[in-house]
Amino acid sequence: MRISELSRRSGAPVATIKYYLRERLLPPGETTAANQAEYGEHHLRRLRLIRALVGVRGLSVSAAKEVLSGVSEHATDMHQMLGLVLGAVPAGKGEAEPAPEARAEVDELLAAAGWKVTEDAPAKRVIAENLSTLRSLGVEVDWHTLLPYARLAHETAVLDLDQLRHTDDPLEQAERALVLTVLLEPVLMALRRLAQEDESARRHGV
Amino acid sequence: MRISELSRRSGAPVATIKYYLRERLLPPGETTAANQAEYGEHHLRRLRLIRALVGVRGLSVSAAKEVLSGVSEHATDMHQMLGLVLGAVPAGKGEAEPAPEARAEVDELLAAAGWKVTEDAPAKRVIAENLSTLRSLGVEVDWHTLLPYARLAHETAVLDLDQLRHTDDPLEQAERALVLTVLLEPVLMALRRLAQEDESARRHGV
Repeated sequence: MRISELSRRSGAPVATIKYYLRERLLPPGETTAANQAEYGEHHLRRLRLIRALVGVRGLSVSAAKEVLSGVSEHATDMHQMLGLVLGAVPAGKGEAEPAPEARAEVDELLAAAGWKVTEDAPAKRVIAENLSTLRSLGVEVDWHTLLPYARLAHETAVLDLDQLRHTDDPLEQAERALVLTVLLEPVLMALRRLAQEDESARRHGV
Repeated sequence: MRISELSRRSGAPVATIKYYLRERLLPPGETTAANQAEYGEHHLRRLRLIRALVGVRGLSVSAAKEVLSGVSEHATDMHQMLGLVLGAVPAGKGEAEPAPEARAEVDELLAAAGWKVTEDAPAKRVIAENLSTLRSLGVEVDWHTLLPYARLAHETAVLDLDQLRHTDDPLEQAERALVLTVLLEPVLMALRRLAQEDESARRHGV
């Protein structure tokens, strides 16, 4: 397809597509004439993914580029690729440096849950940071409080991985993992809020 | 306590505290002499909460002010207050306008889950938006896909509400609800990522 059709089907303006091409976020099309190129379905798929990363989740163009190049590189190793996706997308924007005790507690939590994860996974830091902040606000939480949440998180992860059906194209599977990780986050948090409202109404007899 | 001690105990610079006082985010202290005021424990508690809302979650000062004034107003009605907290804190930053079918699907999901929530809850829009985006990326999801996630979200909400132990001070309980809603979000998403990594390692025999 021509760039105009790519624009129409993706909803991205032609100028934006040209910008992504210049930044090598999108691979070049096949040149068919001077100043004219053909694009395929994989361009469309990648373009939609870029739009989701940049537009919906607010990643910078350079962060999106890094995520995408890593996804291509590790496309044959699903676990490796998933690790990359988990690490590359920032999970939170905490400011405070977590206290060493909070870090130690996260290790206790992981041991109690029986999880084996990368030693320096960014998500571990996020948990430690927020544990510290909650305590500074006078909320008594420790890893025991988080353990039942961890059990539910595991059930959620099982659902997540079940969504990654096998396709012939490892890149497609990799992109699917990335999209699910990123786009289901706000959905899960929204579901929690609605469930809280419902549960609160039940408990307070509304 | 003096403003200097308030600064030391909260970790907020004196200039920041003065800014919050000017913006009426923080109620004034009790004047003890010209240019001198005494602050109490409730100032400290409120200051920490402001820091968490502004610093950790990136709310604007005016958004934080709105949340806090609403919390004070509805402090005696726990359900009302929780509804306010759920509505006031933005749950996502989607750009696309959700398709009408996506909105209808969210209603089907809520009916299937048996939840009763406010008709125009912002969280409903967040789910519809992300359903639309996932579909535009070629991921086949519908409300049936989300139902098992909703069941887990309900179990999470039960844990959340169990954390809100009764205290004599309704304002304290209100603030606790707000803090838990806001600060547990990144923790739950981080737990999901670690659980995904662990589950992926199990499935791919790493």
